[in-house]
Amino acid sequence: MKILLTNDDGIFAQGIRDLAKALIDIGDVFVVAPNRQRSATGHAITMHEPLRAEKIDYFDMKLQAWAVSGTPSDCVKLGIEALMKDLPDIVFSGINRGPNLGTDVLYSGTVSAAIEGAMLGFPSVAVSLASFKDLDYSFAAKFSKKIAKLVIEKQLPKDTLLNVNIPNQNEEVIQGVKITTLGVRKYKNSFIERIDPHGEPYYWLGGEAVDEINGEETDIHSINQGYISITPIHFDLTKFELLERLEQWNIQK
Amino acid sequence: MKILLTNDDGIFAQGIRDLAKALIDIGDVFVVAPNRQRSATGHAITMHEPLRAEKIDYFDMKLQAWAVSGTPSDCVKLGIEALMKDLPDIVFSGINRGPNLGTDVLYSGTVSAAIEGAMLGFPSVAVSLASFKDLDYSFAAKFSKKIAKLVIEKQLPKDTLLNVNIPNQNEEVIQGVKITTLGVRKYKNSFIERIDPHGEPYYWLGGEAVDEINGEETDIHSINQGYISITPIHFDLTKFELLERLEQWNIQK
Repeated sequence: MKILLTNDDGIFAQGIRDLAKALIDIGDVFVVAPNRQRSATGHAITMHEPLRAEKIDYFDMKLQAWAVSGTPSDCVKLGIEALMKDLPDIVFSGINRGPNLGTDVLYSGTVSAAIEGAMLGFPSVAVSLASFKDLDYSFAAKFSKKIAKLVIEKQLPKDTLLNVNIPNQNEEVIQGVKITTLGVRKYKNSFIERIDPHGEPYYWLGGEAVDEINGEETDIHSINQGYISITPIHFDLTKFELLERLEQWNIQK
Repeated sequence: MKILLTNDDGIFAQGIRDLAKALIDIGDVFVVAPNRQRSATGHAITMHEPLRAEKIDYFDMKLQAWAVSGTPSDCVKLGIEALMKDLPDIVFSGINRGPNLGTDVLYSGTVSAAIEGAMLGFPSVAVSLASFKDLDYSFAAKFSKKIAKLVIEKQLPKDTLLNVNIPNQNEEVIQGVKITTLGVRKYKNSFIERIDPHGEPYYWLGGEAVDEINGEETDIHSINQGYISITPIHFDLTKFELLERLEQWNIQK
């Protein structure tokens, strides 16, 4: 099994390193990941400047690895279309430092990389560890290996990827696995305004997540309850239910 | 009517300038747009550095304008949460130089800005002129004004925005308006590999769009036939049809 592996925390982050170490047990791993932190880059791609891909030695693991000057989505495109000799059987993105839940997936470089994989026609999975503190990726890496095997065995529809979030807890404490929908995540007091040493204002995006009422079926609820959440995601943003109503607007040129 | 206006080609691009000039007829316009070209930034947001917002004089128009150091999505967030005194009645993004059709909307800064507007709970519209050559924004600007009034009058569901693409043709030649779904856009030979003056390789994303068979209901087909396309878009990426099948995988931790 050929596995293309990327992330958005950068190629030297602990999460992708631990995931590479786990996935190497079940296939040939090709790490193609950003050469620096690229989180919150959403589905950005680099069109207006060239990309560099430096082949690197990766912690003495038996795999090929390239550190790329672009975004996570660039890495998937470049890996598949230029760097890997053969096509991958599966694309993995992660393990992300921090959750990628609900509406936040739109901002996520990790999830966008997996969306790119699916758009190019490959089974794709994004994996995130749902915490920012005292991170231990070991169970998440082990669970990712299981998911990789399952996805290859059971197969996903061409236009669907899996978004997996895993509680940052010991295996025994984790409650189980839930198949979920994306919840809604909002932030309050998003921007903090400050004055720089020269008297000029600047704005820094901060803010605390204020989760709305998120039903039991959502990823946010599952993670809050100590479960792994697995959400099937697609990339057709058409709001089909509204087509008929818009026709009735009878818009003329 | 208070109108928040942004784009991804940068605040001094012709498309946003012409759109501001048109929208000023029907409301108070607040231009909050990137201080430089930010196309293909997808839904990137700036979390790891501060944002600057410079208040500028905008071509002598009677409006307030800020040139922002961030992405289109940053502009919408910052405009609503920090710069504008009152909340907008509608968010407009565009007029983009070039089409934003089919699966390409995921890469689009223009569409992502409108998605951000909708996520924050405001009626939102993205407008693009479907060509890169000999651009004439005048009809697209006029048509945007009509859409602004219609959206306020008829109202959109909270989680839906409109993605409008307009042929780059004279009003008389344009065939009419179609309510559409997102088509599928693929590219061939995406990366061009070159060698720099120092003997090192670099990769440049290029490639020609190879449209798959796109049904008559799609935006791509409509634009190809000379129609304006209006696609309702939402941002819940959950693939609901797959939930049941995934349950049957019976995944254990």
